[in-house]
Amino acid sequence: MTKPTDLTLYTASVPNGIKVSTALEYLELPYKVYPIAFSKLEQKEPWYLEINPNGRVPAIVDVDSAGEKTCVMESGAILLYITDKYDPENKLSYPFGSKEYYEMLEWVFWQVGGLGPMQGQASHFLRYCLSDNPDVQAYGVNRYQNETRRLMTVLETRLAKQKATRNSAYLVGDHLSVADLACLGWVLFDTYVGIESSEFPLLEKWQDEISAMPLIKKGLDVPTEFRIKQVAKDPELLKQASAAGQSWIKKGGEAEKK
Amino acid sequence: MTKPTDLTLYTASVPNGIKVSTALEYLELPYKVYPIAFSKLEQKEPWYLEINPNGRVPAIVDVDSAGEKTCVMESGAILLYITDKYDPENKLSYPFGSKEYYEMLEWVFWQVGGLGPMQGQASHFLRYCLSDNPDVQAYGVNRYQNETRRLMTVLETRLAKQKATRNSAYLVGDHLSVADLACLGWVLFDTYVGIESSEFPLLEKWQDEISAMPLIKKGLDVPTEFRIKQVAKDPELLKQASAAGQSWIKKGGEAEKK
Repeated sequence: MTKPTDLTLYTASVPNGIKVSTALEYLELPYKVYPIAFSKLEQKEPWYLEINPNGRVPAIVDVDSAGEKTCVMESGAILLYITDKYDPENKLSYPFGSKEYYEMLEWVFWQVGGLGPMQGQASHFLRYCLSDNPDVQAYGVNRYQNETRRLMTVLETRLAKQKATRNSAYLVGDHLSVADLACLGWVLFDTYVGIESSEFPLLEKWQDEISAMPLIKKGLDVPTEFRIKQVAKDPELLKQASAAGQSWIKKGGEAEKK
Repeated sequence: MTKPTDLTLYTASVPNGIKVSTALEYLELPYKVYPIAFSKLEQKEPWYLEINPNGRVPAIVDVDSAGEKTCVMESGAILLYITDKYDPENKLSYPFGSKEYYEMLEWVFWQVGGLGPMQGQASHFLRYCLSDNPDVQAYGVNRYQNETRRLMTVLETRLAKQKATRNSAYLVGDHLSVADLACLGWVLFDTYVGIESSEFPLLEKWQDEISAMPLIKKGLDVPTEFRIKQVAKDPELLKQASAAGQSWIKKGGEAEKK
């Protein structure tokens, strides 16, 4: 059983969603896509909370040939589930228990606990801040852009070390892994939080090269065309993205108070 | 090899640190403790960055009987490393690949990506906010206390489901696991971020019962006596904790700009 027989990905065109769709495409696994409509607060509907009690994307439901159903929430857990079950040749992972396996875990957890939430807060204050007081936005943008830059510096340093010590262009070992895809999902949104890709030259090369791989490119376009780099450069598109984000935050906040 | 021969934990009396020390104590594993002095910015010293390039606690260095050294950063990765290597009887984990194993991963990642960073931001705005503008603090406290409450509601709902469906008092399966310890590290700091334990009755019972277990209690007191519940109730101790936190944040921020 190295291919899923009936796997559905519940997702949206957001950093944590593309982490999983790029992994599924890179491994050339069959799966169905269910796009979650934030505008309708679909992620808070009871049927979805049965799959993901946290009410966020992504999640997967994997039904095996015997009809046994497994739901997995949290992009980090999903990436490990997929590689444990469907990557026996370690195209996107390293053998369980190996030194590289634990390095992969380190960088997946580092992204999930650091880069993701901190860059997410930079997005909030830069793009969706609901306060009219400019001090509020300024404090948040300063705090979270600084932290995102610090974290991207950690990645830049890691890539330099990988290049120097093992002539590798990837975060772990000698090939692409879910550690790279976890971080890529967020690094691609750098301009959207006001950080120029060129500030981190190795990271820029890394994100350009990985996102140009045909299978990764295919995964980035799930469930809709991936356009964040264009959006981030276009004032009108940025305004629309901010307005949409603010609207979901308000709706979501009200729904959660009920 | 079910016991480490030379394992050192680099830690401090903070949520992510006690996640690991409680796990090591519960498994009755031999280890050395190296307390990291935030007041001296020891976490940014070059020797420590070799172990943990992110400059945060905790980290472990595990040297096996052949002299082979493994460094692991990120509390989530450390918890999985420890249980993979030193918990063959699954006292604090579930067998690799089992349904419960992936549920355990889900909740560890959920804590690392959600409860930890969001409650951490609530701490920042409530206890360490560096702005003189009261709107800044109010916006941050509102945003992150709400999110922390939402996340604790998710935990409360999970405990109710575990009780109803399998008569279990734990987050995953039928016994204590690193999923509980990951969350416990943060839930114990509830009062410190202005959330009363009694707001979440099942979670209150869960945290009281687990932290009263003698081995867990021992782990909470690493590297120093665990006193957050007392501190959170004492205005003078709270003031001292806030001042110390603000001082580290300022020093850390300056050091990172260099």
